[in-house]
Amino acid sequence: MFEKNLEIGFLLDFYGDVLSERKRTVLDYYYNDDLSLAEIAEEIGISRQGVRELIKKSADELLFYEEKLGLARRFREAEEQARHLLEMMETARVDGEIRDAARRLMETVKG
Amino acid sequence: MFEKNLEIGFLLDFYGDVLSERKRTVLDYYYNDDLSLAEIAEEIGISRQGVRELIKKSADELLFYEEKLGLARRFREAEEQARHLLEMMETARVDGEIRDAARRLMETVKG
Repeated sequence: MFEKNLEIGFLLDFYGDVLSERKRTVLDYYYNDDLSLAEIAEEIGISRQGVRELIKKSADELLFYEEKLGLARRFREAEEQARHLLEMMETARVDGEIRDAARRLMETVKG
Repeated sequence: MFEKNLEIGFLLDFYGDVLSERKRTVLDYYYNDDLSLAEIAEEIGISRQGVRELIKKSADELLFYEEKLGLARRFREAEEQARHLLEMMETARVDGEIRDAARRLMETVKG
């Protein structure tokens, strides 16, 4: 058994739409619905070993995108920075209109 | 001749690293260096028609990514929002430390 990589679930939300439907489905079953290999095998009608290989291949595809583009990391960083900025603004009682603008920015960068 | 699509140059900066080197090179020659099809043909040693097809195929790949993921659009929107936020902060003379935090966020979302 390979270890479940929580990062994959995150990358699936981020890049999942460029995968084929079959790959997306199998990763979704495994990482989001927490089905076992045997359950997924029964669900999509291939062998347990086939499921294992398909998960590996699909996860590698997600990792390839993030390694090349790093966009998930950048969005996550922007979200943290926006959260920190909002906290500072709250403490300093910055004008409400400016805080609203920061909140809208936060929504845009949130995954 | 197909029309030059300025959006492609932008998407190339954004998603170019997931293309093969050949595709990235040909788009770079065409959209960034503004070489003609004939010049690119000579440069990489294929026919003019081959270049045309390669550009079309590579550009379609970029458009596919943006259609599926919409990340370039989201980054651009975040950048505009961050710029607007910084302007508002400047006008309202918001505390320098908070403005620095907003500037760092701006750097993260800038293309």
